[in-house]
Amino acid sequence: MNYPKSIQQAIEALRIFPGVGAKSAERYVLALLDLSDSKREQFIADLHGLNHVRQCKVCGNYCEGEICEICKDENRDGSTICVVASAKDLLAIENAGFFNGRYHVLNGVLSSSKGIYPQDLNLDALFERIHQGNIQEVVLATPLTMDGEMTAMYIDRKLNDSKILVTRIARGLPMGGQIDYADMTTLKQAFSGRKKVDHDE
Amino acid sequence: MNYPKSIQQAIEALRIFPGVGAKSAERYVLALLDLSDSKREQFIADLHGLNHVRQCKVCGNYCEGEICEICKDENRDGSTICVVASAKDLLAIENAGFFNGRYHVLNGVLSSSKGIYPQDLNLDALFERIHQGNIQEVVLATPLTMDGEMTAMYIDRKLNDSKILVTRIARGLPMGGQIDYADMTTLKQAFSGRKKVDHDE
Repeated sequence: MNYPKSIQQAIEALRIFPGVGAKSAERYVLALLDLSDSKREQFIADLHGLNHVRQCKVCGNYCEGEICEICKDENRDGSTICVVASAKDLLAIENAGFFNGRYHVLNGVLSSSKGIYPQDLNLDALFERIHQGNIQEVVLATPLTMDGEMTAMYIDRKLNDSKILVTRIARGLPMGGQIDYADMTTLKQAFSGRKKVDHDE
Repeated sequence: MNYPKSIQQAIEALRIFPGVGAKSAERYVLALLDLSDSKREQFIADLHGLNHVRQCKVCGNYCEGEICEICKDENRDGSTICVVASAKDLLAIENAGFFNGRYHVLNGVLSSSKGIYPQDLNLDALFERIHQGNIQEVVLATPLTMDGEMTAMYIDRKLNDSKILVTRIARGLPMGGQIDYADMTTLKQAFSGRKKVDHDE
């Protein structure tokens, strides 16, 4: 004996969530069954709302209309574009609150092992933006992984001939990082990127 | 800046799942956004199917029609009723595969602290079943918590005058249980419930 078919289907459906196995999915479905019919309808309507989410025509960020709030914002510095792999990375930087430029979301990184090539990413739009607009700096904030580095290198090479400043986010130890736990590459990069202690910072 | 409203609403909605905080809900919603429109529709339809789930008119188990599969099954021993707090507990016992009787789901346990009284539980239907049917044994499989014990005691007292055998599932150490980690009550119960070693078992 097992759960009725509709419960089993719902459990199976919830397993698309990352890290959610049969046990968690079951607990989630039982929580949904505990809701009143009207609350469950509201829950489903809230998920249905995701159908309104589009990608910004300019930068690829999530938005509900054509252009996202950041691209619309006149107060942002349009001369700096920060290139990120995903809208989630964009939000992480945005929530830290120090960056006032604009973004460009690649929707992934180049990967020879996964067969992801330049034409699979939101790259053409990036180069078009750069060549059309009044861009002074492109900050490459793709992940510090092998594929992320490759992607950054690829973009850097493509912009070689332009007079645009291309920068890469710094490598080093994270806040709270333990020296003895750091891998050798990170340690080496943290040393070669060392700066004079600035008493004003 | 934050996610568009529809993403925020979906994140908020997913937090009804037990143990799911803002971070997990965000990851889940981003996974939903990664789905194609048709796959997301299927996902939502699967959750919608939960509206078909009813409680069995006889035992309170989840089912899709009026009567659940267990109550319909002629091969089950109708003279033994196992009383459980929830349909989830029922399934746990059922999946272990050793019990061939029928069940009765209380939809909770008595709790003076939470204000749950006999009339709030599926108890009247239990006593009606017991008095009408040809029941020989009632196995009380409510949780081994204070409230679960109270509920078991309440049912036992109500059936005092009948000739029905009322049993309670055994207390003791679980499989793999460490003696030094067991609480005193459990240890005491494990000793008082000790059995002669049976070489055939």
